[in-house]
Amino acid sequence: MSTRTLDSLDLGDVPLFDHHCHGVIPTDVDRVEFEALISESSRPATAGTTRFDSQVGFQVLANCAPILGLEPFCEPDEYIARRRKLGAEEVNRRLLRAAHITVYGIETGHGADRILGPEQMAEMAKAHQCEIVRLERLAEDVFERLRDTGTATSTEAVAEIACELDARLETAVGVKTIAAYRIGFDFEDARPERREVEAAAARLLAATGSIRLDDSVMIRHLIWLAIDRACVIQVHVGYGDDDVDLHRCNPLLLTRLLRASIDSGARFTLLHCYPFHREAGYLADVFPHVYFDVGLGINYTGSRSEEIIAESLELAPFGKILFSSDAWGAAELYYLGAMLFRRGLTAALTRFAKLDRWPVEQCERVARMIGYDNAARLYGFDPLGLIGGE
Amino acid sequence: MSTRTLDSLDLGDVPLFDHHCHGVIPTDVDRVEFEALISESSRPATAGTTRFDSQVGFQVLANCAPILGLEPFCEPDEYIARRRKLGAEEVNRRLLRAAHITVYGIETGHGADRILGPEQMAEMAKAHQCEIVRLERLAEDVFERLRDTGTATSTEAVAEIACELDARLETAVGVKTIAAYRIGFDFEDARPERREVEAAAARLLAATGSIRLDDSVMIRHLIWLAIDRACVIQVHVGYGDDDVDLHRCNPLLLTRLLRASIDSGARFTLLHCYPFHREAGYLADVFPHVYFDVGLGINYTGSRSEEIIAESLELAPFGKILFSSDAWGAAELYYLGAMLFRRGLTAALTRFAKLDRWPVEQCERVARMIGYDNAARLYGFDPLGLIGGE
Amino acid sequence: MSTRTLDSLDLGDVPLFDHHCHGVIPTDVDRVEFEALISESSRPATAGTTRFDSQVGFQVLANCAPILGLEPFCEPDEYIARRRKLGAEEVNRRLLRAAHITVYGIETGHGADRILGPEQMAEMAKAHQCEIVRLERLAEDVFERLRDTGTATSTEAVAEIACELDARLETAVGVKTIAAYRIGFDFEDARPERREVEAAAARLLAATGSIRLDDSVMIRHLIWLAIDRACVIQVHVGYGDDDVDLHRCNPLLLTRLLRASIDSGARFTLLHCYPFHREAGYLADVFPHVYFDVGLGINYTGSRSEEIIAESLELAPFGKILFSSDAWGAAELYYLGAMLFRRGLTAALTRFAKLDRWPVEQCERVARMIGYDNAARLYGFDPLGLIGGE
Repeated sequence: MSTRTLDSLDLGDVPLFDHHCHGVIPTDVDRVEFEALISESSRPATAGTTRFDSQVGFQVLANCAPILGLEPFCEPDEYIARRRKLGAEEVNRRLLRAAHITVYGIETGHGADRILGPEQMAEMAKAHQCEIVRLERLAEDVFERLRDTGTATSTEAVAEIACELDARLETAVGVKTIAAYRIGFDFEDARPERREVEAAAARLLAATGSIRLDDSVMIRHLIWLAIDRACVIQVHVGYGDDDVDLHRCNPLLLTRLLRASIDSGARFTLLHCYPFHREAGYLADVFPHVYFDVGLGINYTGSRSEEIIAESLELAPFGKILFSSDAWGAAELYYLGAMLFRRGLTAALTRFAKLDRWPVEQCERVARMIGYDNAARLYGFDPLGLIGGE
Repeated sequence: MSTRTLDSLDLGDVPLFDHHCHGVIPTDVDRVEFEALISESSRPATAGTTRFDSQVGFQVLANCAPILGLEPFCEPDEYIARRRKLGAEEVNRRLLRAAHITVYGIETGHGADRILGPEQMAEMAKAHQCEIVRLERLAEDVFERLRDTGTATSTEAVAEIACELDARLETAVGVKTIAAYRIGFDFEDARPERREVEAAAARLLAATGSIRLDDSVMIRHLIWLAIDRACVIQVHVGYGDDDVDLHRCNPLLLTRLLRASIDSGARFTLLHCYPFHREAGYLADVFPHVYFDVGLGINYTGSRSEEIIAESLELAPFGKILFSSDAWGAAELYYLGAMLFRRGLTAALTRFAKLDRWPVEQCERVARMIGYDNAARLYGFDPLGLIGGE
Repeated sequence: MSTRTLDSLDLGDVPLFDHHCHGVIPTDVDRVEFEALISESSRPATAGTTRFDSQVGFQVLANCAPILGLEPFCEPDEYIARRRKLGAEEVNRRLLRAAHITVYGIETGHGADRILGPEQMAEMAKAHQCEIVRLERLAEDVFERLRDTGTATSTEAVAEIACELDARLETAVGVKTIAAYRIGFDFEDARPERREVEAAAARLLAATGSIRLDDSVMIRHLIWLAIDRACVIQVHVGYGDDDVDLHRCNPLLLTRLLRASIDSGARFTLLHCYPFHREAGYLADVFPHVYFDVGLGINYTGSRSEEIIAESLELAPFGKILFSSDAWGAAELYYLGAMLFRRGLTAALTRFAKLDRWPVEQCERVARMIGYDNAARLYGFDPLGLIGGE
């Protein structure tokens, strides 16, 4: 039994594997742009209000301002001015390094032309990186490319998607689906039939302009392609922007798909999940191939994030919980995601240790599982060499 | 940065705009009647139990008894006897003034013949008042009146409803819908067509006896009338009496209606919301025209209300959160609603200040936004002149 | 008003009526079997993980190990070895007696051939027992028996089920339904018609092999049989194994059935309920014949169970909340269920007392209601003679 006291619980050195995030914007932003970056709404703040008057806004003023050399709770305009004076590169460098994230698992399918790529992120943050491929974006790119050639058949398009996915998976460690945004989770769980898929492909090849994949058959097909390849499949769940019908992306609606894929070798990571994180914890408890995190919600609930993190530590075995920031664009979101996660996890584990005498060593072991080991094992990517020959 | 310490956080002087409540009963009540007033059930307490043995009942005994000159946790019968000895008027005056509510936003469509009207409430409480019109009651009154004349057509009835609404809105600051109770939220979000509305009106004109509006077409029509007038539309959400199918009034089911009305100028305030307050906070976050409160649930969760209030301070920007008591009938419910709200908000803000160094001035500013400013701006009713020329 | 201080709040002597549990396994188990017993999943732990690395696993190591004479947080293998060395009977005796449960309400319809029966449990635990009959199991047994005679008609089978139920209710104090697992709660609430029931019976009599009742008509028929007999009807709600579609057993989906049975004399106890315990609390609040507990979830959330218990003390009157462990098989689960319940209830009541000056006597009275009195009154089984001639 431990002889170390709880006062020595310090998770500052626990390595973090941010298994789902994106890149930072490398250019300066003005106040309007910055407020948009710290919001999930597609609209500007309501007249008479500012996005700084929110949990995440207060986090920026409280905890990021000092990293940029400002007093906590300076004026928002002062914060933006300081950001511009330092320049985006310096701001990004300071905040990313302060985040102290060891591995960035970067999903490259959203606004990739505006943000740094995986290698640039790793260099900026002095960290490791791996890539996650967004299925819908991959398919959209294939359909637009083949459509523009003018000669591809639907059969060829379906083959090309599989081929392109295989090529990407030579380096990428997993895939992501945004079925939540495009079709909700109340979809048919069965594998779509070949002729259905080809018919969907034909429709997509006939589309004009930029293609936005919201075809249920094709999205199910992409998910099953990934299942067949025994991929780690990241699934957007719950909280996100106003494009989502939140009640249609309750992860429990995935139950039958999870049951159908239980012996496939594929594994599912349910992302974000707020306010369905207890439901996600249940799925991670009863299905051996299901994992989850409460990223995104951590940043956006700010001073309340300790409670969300504590709620994520209920049903799910400790080996099934992951860390992510889901940051995109603003370097503040990586820093806050990591800092708030470490803080909330420390608070929860300290509470458990007080209630039930969890030894410090066990607290640290659980923290390292959630922070790094689980993701390293799951994605088969362990640059620190911590998980051994499993 | 603040030089004041957190110990000075005292929200006792924060003005409260109770944007959704009703009137008190001006007459004495016996124990059975009082127990019914502190319950959302349409039934008496289960045999062998009393409504005093509940969170709200314990609140009455703990915190209202002293205001009536009794020891905390006196016997329920003693409480009722004291209430009758003082008389309803004195009881109401004491409790309403102790509530220290500055503005009462009074919804007049429920049991109006048994309770005080807005002006009487304002006088009793030495406070300001404004009125909210219940759409379904307005329509029921119009249909009953026209039906009883025996000559009105459905076209005339539809016109009369619009006319009556315009007349009421000359003084009222907003409307309320109880679609949750009557049809649930899984209704078609599109504006109903003229001929559908007239057919519904014809059915209602042909009804006998007292009219209870539960026609989906007509209720949707009323909501769209209010949207067209860029009203503030209060929506009953979540917790309420056993007349509601709670799972059918999850506010997420309103997502498409909210999307369809985003640029209309109308604003929606989601009332009560328990246990869907996190879902409501999400909607208030991503939709610029959505606000919410956790009234009603505060009173009925009593000693647990601090947690509900803390949970309401997660995703939603601080400028989108409101205060209400949803009190009806018993003066205790206004006092408890206000006291518990101030207490819970103080506890939450104190916690945030400790975690993230929120300055006292920022805590007070957030409290004033939620307590008064947001409602004053939203309803355009600012008797204290606090929100300036916005 | 109380003159005793809060420091004297000690619920260790509050009697517990575990109104829903099963029997322990009387034989030794190995590590694989033990891990299965402390999990709701039908699958072994994910490769690279162990069920000991979970809230319930840590509870076993923290709080059961000392009862078996081990240091807290010994190695799992050490725990299993000690268990086998002591032998199942000694392990069961120690843990059951440490649980200090007064009445075991034993549901006998699940895996009865592997576990101790009610009388054996009572003897082992030096406690009282009563029996709960599982409706689906009763019907499956009748259908298998009559089918195997080869001569029974569907009319006879329907009559035999009613007859068998009446016979069992001569001693049993209530029934249980697992409709959640078999058909979900989105079923037709109306009483099925006679001819539908007979048709269902005919189908079941024609089935081959072991009968698993998942016929919606027959399950609804069983529920209405119990309603007609004014039974206490235990309903599995929410958390359970991967056989359940969790979103289809939200208790709110029972609203119409509850409304339809409100004056029948039947009473419903919603079991477990996590993560829908707030919804269950709402139903217990507004429907006089609805009760609920948060058993099962208490064990499986371990160090977090205090929060689940606190959340169960919101809307529902104190006279409508029950205690259960839902333990099956492992004696640890009875001990932990009781210990964590007492601890969480103590924490919640202590918090309420601090916030709102609940007198110690009131805290103890509320604890005794929830721990014992409510169940004793509900089931009409009061071996301690505490609830008087109500």
